[in-house]
Amino acid sequence: MIDFQYLSSIRKKTNSKIVMIVVDGLGGMTDPSTGKSELETAELPNLDKLASISSCGVSTPVLPGITPGSGPGHMALFGYNPIKYLLGRGVLEGLGIGAPIKKGDVAARGNFCLLGEDGKIIDRRAGRITTEECVELVELLKQIEIPGFGIEIHPVMDYRFVLVFKGETSSPDVSETDPQTTGVTPLISNPTSERGTGTALAVNLFTQRSAEILREHNGSANGILLRGFSNIPELPDFGASYALSPAAIAAYPMYRGVAGILGMDVLKSKQTFDDEIKTLKANFSKNYDYFFLHYKPADSAGEDGNFAQKVAMLEEFDSQLETILQLEPDVLVVCGDHSTPSYIASHSWHPVPFLICSNLSQGRVGARFTENSCQEGSIGSIRAEELMLLVLSHADKLNKFGP
Amino acid sequence: MIDFQYLSSIRKKTNSKIVMIVVDGLGGMTDPSTGKSELETAELPNLDKLASISSCGVSTPVLPGITPGSGPGHMALFGYNPIKYLLGRGVLEGLGIGAPIKKGDVAARGNFCLLGEDGKIIDRRAGRITTEECVELVELLKQIEIPGFGIEIHPVMDYRFVLVFKGETSSPDVSETDPQTTGVTPLISNPTSERGTGTALAVNLFTQRSAEILREHNGSANGILLRGFSNIPELPDFGASYALSPAAIAAYPMYRGVAGILGMDVLKSKQTFDDEIKTLKANFSKNYDYFFLHYKPADSAGEDGNFAQKVAMLEEFDSQLETILQLEPDVLVVCGDHSTPSYIASHSWHPVPFLICSNLSQGRVGARFTENSCQEGSIGSIRAEELMLLVLSHADKLNKFGP
Repeated sequence: MIDFQYLSSIRKKTNSKIVMIVVDGLGGMTDPSTGKSELETAELPNLDKLASISSCGVSTPVLPGITPGSGPGHMALFGYNPIKYLLGRGVLEGLGIGAPIKKGDVAARGNFCLLGEDGKIIDRRAGRITTEECVELVELLKQIEIPGFGIEIHPVMDYRFVLVFKGETSSPDVSETDPQTTGVTPLISNPTSERGTGTALAVNLFTQRSAEILREHNGSANGILLRGFSNIPELPDFGASYALSPAAIAAYPMYRGVAGILGMDVLKSKQTFDDEIKTLKANFSKNYDYFFLHYKPADSAGEDGNFAQKVAMLEEFDSQLETILQLEPDVLVVCGDHSTPSYIASHSWHPVPFLICSNLSQGRVGARFTENSCQEGSIGSIRAEELMLLVLSHADKLNKFGP
Repeated sequence: MIDFQYLSSIRKKTNSKIVMIVVDGLGGMTDPSTGKSELETAELPNLDKLASISSCGVSTPVLPGITPGSGPGHMALFGYNPIKYLLGRGVLEGLGIGAPIKKGDVAARGNFCLLGEDGKIIDRRAGRITTEECVELVELLKQIEIPGFGIEIHPVMDYRFVLVFKGETSSPDVSETDPQTTGVTPLISNPTSERGTGTALAVNLFTQRSAEILREHNGSANGILLRGFSNIPELPDFGASYALSPAAIAAYPMYRGVAGILGMDVLKSKQTFDDEIKTLKANFSKNYDYFFLHYKPADSAGEDGNFAQKVAMLEEFDSQLETILQLEPDVLVVCGDHSTPSYIASHSWHPVPFLICSNLSQGRVGARFTENSCQEGSIGSIRAEELMLLVLSHADKLNKFGP
């Protein structure tokens, strides 16, 4: 939670309802051939109209120049310092497939790999085996039992799986077995604190048994590599911290997972943004005053390096905004967890535009919902971590600080 | 003081003179009927001309979205972190009436209240008794003596007074007696640390004796409620920190009080801004190199929700700038402690425009002194706490940092 110790003394409960839409990978970069970014190229009549009557700005997810993963990107938007509350790779991978990770569980990201006769790693991804084979191999490994530990193993995609040590005996304080290079043997896991002693032993036993079973099975993989041992950190409750009754609507499991560990009510929704909007409509009059909606397609197009598709997905989002506007939320926020410029086909550190529309907004005639125009907006440049304070103030949910 | 440990190693004494004018409640919001803010509506020929040759920006008093009281608003402008150096309600109320609060004294904000037969609070403000009656009741309470404590009591306005426990035995570590609601009895003050034990006892004795005296007097009030027990925190000296010889000119006691506890020379001045300017002129050639001037009327108009009056008060300020410009200060700063939009008739979190005019400024053709134009200025968006560094650098009072 943002480092402002007086928040609990100034927050107030009001009837206003907030809809905060996170457009994944929202920001972009200029296409060298046109001199325009995706947002500048797209036809966004609803967003541009909103921008002119909204408080606009750009948010820096972590620090200037730092490209965030999806975890830090979202944590910051919810007001959690993304460095202090860093979610580990294992936990995030688990949340990403909807694995039921509980407090105290330790999750690790696993690779099926190919080892040589000498035990050295030939291929860290076992020739990128199919998801089908991954599921098959995971089934085989489910037979492994280690006294004192509950073990769950879930296939993810291709050669990737998630391993979860359940319960009180497990600890994330163990080193990784994945050396992240080839030509060397997998590493032995060692405890990094006294608490990790038992878990390190369990990790090494599991790895050994897996190799035995995989060799016997004689498929594409004959070993496993584990990294990112992590558990869910101690997190302040989102609703309690802000005096909000929050609900999350997201098609992708990871975002549902993040919202869930922050204590939001995760509403059931089907796969498309259209489905998400239906869920919003069905729940809007209920006892929630904050809705987090996640829009994924812009990020996917950016990751694919497909400028035209990202433009199309932003235009699609713009057209779907109308239905949300019809609900007349008191505060509408459109923001992004990070930029995903098609030009570099990956997440980036570029500041992300946002708008906050309420009756307390300061708009600007002629403003548009683009990187450059939002930079010139009434809020200017902020840390993403600070956004929630602005959202609350636009919802009239904060009293004055100090006499 | 701003968290920059090297400040003392780079500050330098020069002959340049700084005039820093704090326009209280400077920033505003758009009038929905015209699409223009107070600053955009006002005719401000001097300020607009200055803006075009000044370094302009907007300042965030505390954090984005946080609305500051006058205390945090001013502390930040003087470079004191407004969260770390939070002045308590009792102290600020005392400074606001010019009560002589010294280091170590503990001040509390008091209400005269009305209690029922059962001792429960009927009216926390005793029917908002007149200031006249308040003065009369305060006189009665002056007879109360508590061994070991020096006690001062000062009327403020209506039902409000300030109670000061003088001297070394007093401690702010006591809980409030004002439950800030009706239908319950006033609270007993308890020590919140060992140091507070004696003071809590004194608070309870004072409250009890007050009730006896007030009942006997048989006026509108028969009890008192106390809150905001506080003393003056350990504050770095303003002049010593910046290597400045500072003077403060403010008509309102609270701003004189704040300047005083920061170690500024508080110059005698009469009630109007015109009087303040006369004081500035009379002292300008003296051995001061920093003048803080406070302009109150814009805030008052904003608090009243009177858009036209705020516009008029900004225009009045603009016209009076001419006399100040004739003094040819090396650096002229126009800034605000917070926004007070007429639209919401209260302080707000909206970023506050500022300009710094010196021969080191970076101006912009066509710039105006408005929220939007300053946002686009050469400085952009900063924390108010950082403003003093910019003021010093524009006065050529800072050497290079680092080799």
